[in-house]
Amino acid sequence: MSNVNVAIVGATGAVGTKILEKLLARKFPINSIKLLASKRSAGKEIVANDQRFIVEETQPEAFEGVDIAFFSAGGHISEMFAEEAVKRGAVVIDNTSAFRMVEAIPLVVPEVNLDALRQHKGIIANPNCSTIQMVAALQPIREKFGLKRLVVSTYQAVSGAGAEAIAELEAQTKKFETRADIKAELLPSADGEKHYPIAFNAIPQIDAFDDSGYTLEELKMMNETKKIFGLPELQISATCVRLPIVTGHSESVYIELDQEGVSVDDLRGVLSHAPGIVLQDDFMAQSYPMPLFAEGKDEIFVGRLRKDPDHPTGFHLWIVADNLLKGAALNSVQIAESLITIRTS
Amino acid sequence: MSNVNVAIVGATGAVGTKILEKLLARKFPINSIKLLASKRSAGKEIVANDQRFIVEETQPEAFEGVDIAFFSAGGHISEMFAEEAVKRGAVVIDNTSAFRMVEAIPLVVPEVNLDALRQHKGIIANPNCSTIQMVAALQPIREKFGLKRLVVSTYQAVSGAGAEAIAELEAQTKKFETRADIKAELLPSADGEKHYPIAFNAIPQIDAFDDSGYTLEELKMMNETKKIFGLPELQISATCVRLPIVTGHSESVYIELDQEGVSVDDLRGVLSHAPGIVLQDDFMAQSYPMPLFAEGKDEIFVGRLRKDPDHPTGFHLWIVADNLLKGAALNSVQIAESLITIRTS
Repeated sequence: MSNVNVAIVGATGAVGTKILEKLLARKFPINSIKLLASKRSAGKEIVANDQRFIVEETQPEAFEGVDIAFFSAGGHISEMFAEEAVKRGAVVIDNTSAFRMVEAIPLVVPEVNLDALRQHKGIIANPNCSTIQMVAALQPIREKFGLKRLVVSTYQAVSGAGAEAIAELEAQTKKFETRADIKAELLPSADGEKHYPIAFNAIPQIDAFDDSGYTLEELKMMNETKKIFGLPELQISATCVRLPIVTGHSESVYIELDQEGVSVDDLRGVLSHAPGIVLQDDFMAQSYPMPLFAEGKDEIFVGRLRKDPDHPTGFHLWIVADNLLKGAALNSVQIAESLITIRTS
Repeated sequence: MSNVNVAIVGATGAVGTKILEKLLARKFPINSIKLLASKRSAGKEIVANDQRFIVEETQPEAFEGVDIAFFSAGGHISEMFAEEAVKRGAVVIDNTSAFRMVEAIPLVVPEVNLDALRQHKGIIANPNCSTIQMVAALQPIREKFGLKRLVVSTYQAVSGAGAEAIAELEAQTKKFETRADIKAELLPSADGEKHYPIAFNAIPQIDAFDDSGYTLEELKMMNETKKIFGLPELQISATCVRLPIVTGHSESVYIELDQEGVSVDDLRGVLSHAPGIVLQDDFMAQSYPMPLFAEGKDEIFVGRLRKDPDHPTGFHLWIVADNLLKGAALNSVQIAESLITIRTS
């Protein structure tokens, strides 16, 4: 498996496009790349890194000879085709929520739980975007000081809902000056009955609601975090909010450590050496992470570190990352890179 | 004091304008209104409710004969002129942070601590916008179930930084399509050295930083909440974030109650009868508060009520209000109305 035959399912989407770009940019050892999408997109030409690719229709036979298949075309497509790909010998790296909470399927952020990869049986799940950046940033803190509890509020960009959501924000923004004829047809949830403008607004709903009153996005953060950390007893509760930001998710994360007596400087110390993390936390210089400046970057930016004056183990962090890159495409490609390292080591 | 001589200091600003509008719309028993502002604005004509007003310069003598003076022109103007107004017999309702944490000066949200008004010695402080909507929404919960702890993340509109910040957001938004020549000259803090674009961004800084790493906005929320509730032992920690929203502050508020065994329906029960509160919490119908729909409204909107599955007394709330109205102008006018009720009762 020195040179890999790769397939990307959902190659025309916001994340699929970035997976192709990252594979080429990071010089992944590719033998061939097959771009798969719906029948409607079949025949479409995609150019990346000066190479031309023709999109093919996703069908079971398309996975013949494929070594690694990236899936990012919605949960139902993964449910339809992932097993077909595995049956034909491919390892599937799935970027949808279809298999994330299946116990036997590893849910992997390489900086956090690379070991889980070794147990895969053909399918590896890539966590939700808002989960990835949080657990990767918290991992060095958890390793050194222990994590007891998380209270999270997110500030999420529209690109997390796909290219059409970006178009919706842009169209609404243009019409906003006159406030006339603003159409909301997609957000907060394409499947929902009601749609609300996102331009100059905050929508406290991402994905559909569960009977508990939590949204699926909130439950993903809560459940996936416990699974990735292997900490079923971790207390975690989240509020997820969509905002008029194109790309870059931000998170206001409140943590309680297992240990007392930890200082902000102790947290800075472990974060400053952590893989994939950029500590951007110099408040005197007004230096802190912001989504506008995280766009297009591979790293996770962490700042606004503060001790809760009223709680002995409580701290705040502000965590920002490009939701299409580390939140999705980059993490998937890093999983693939780790697979190769494991096999060849 | 059946007919009141009123002055508004900072009458040309975002909040001053709304104070005038609210006084007229709510038929406050006015004998005369004097609009005061900087020398630069003196002579300017303001039209409200079909009445014409001429702006005068703020000077000590301008407060002769004034019964109630609303101040909303920045902390240094309040420091310069509030005592001058009191000396001349006026009661000052101050919308700046100048006197809020002075122990002898009442900090009032009428729905929460009306009693504090009776102890005023001439100056009454109006709390920070983000504090007001939170304490008013939490008051019925606190009364019935007790509050032990708050963890807050805010989603704040640019109008909280004044009319110039709205203009900055609009100008940046127009230029954003080409991403060329975007000027950031005001936000996050006019006094700061660095300025960042707010369009399509999230800035985790409102007001300047304290040595602790908290911003003054965050410390206002934390300190003012304890003072208004009269709960110095309340645990509270906040993260305040500026967003590309014109008007309407949203807050993701996590609370721990004093009591166990409380249900979401119990919280809904007390909120549904609370003064000034609109419970908007039907997730099955995708009904929840949003800033775009709170603009221009007097009420505080509360929704997304959820029980933390991992903590016996933990709940989430999502609280939204027009930061210029209940967050500032309306609360000031309600304080004035309460003063009159107290005097005549």
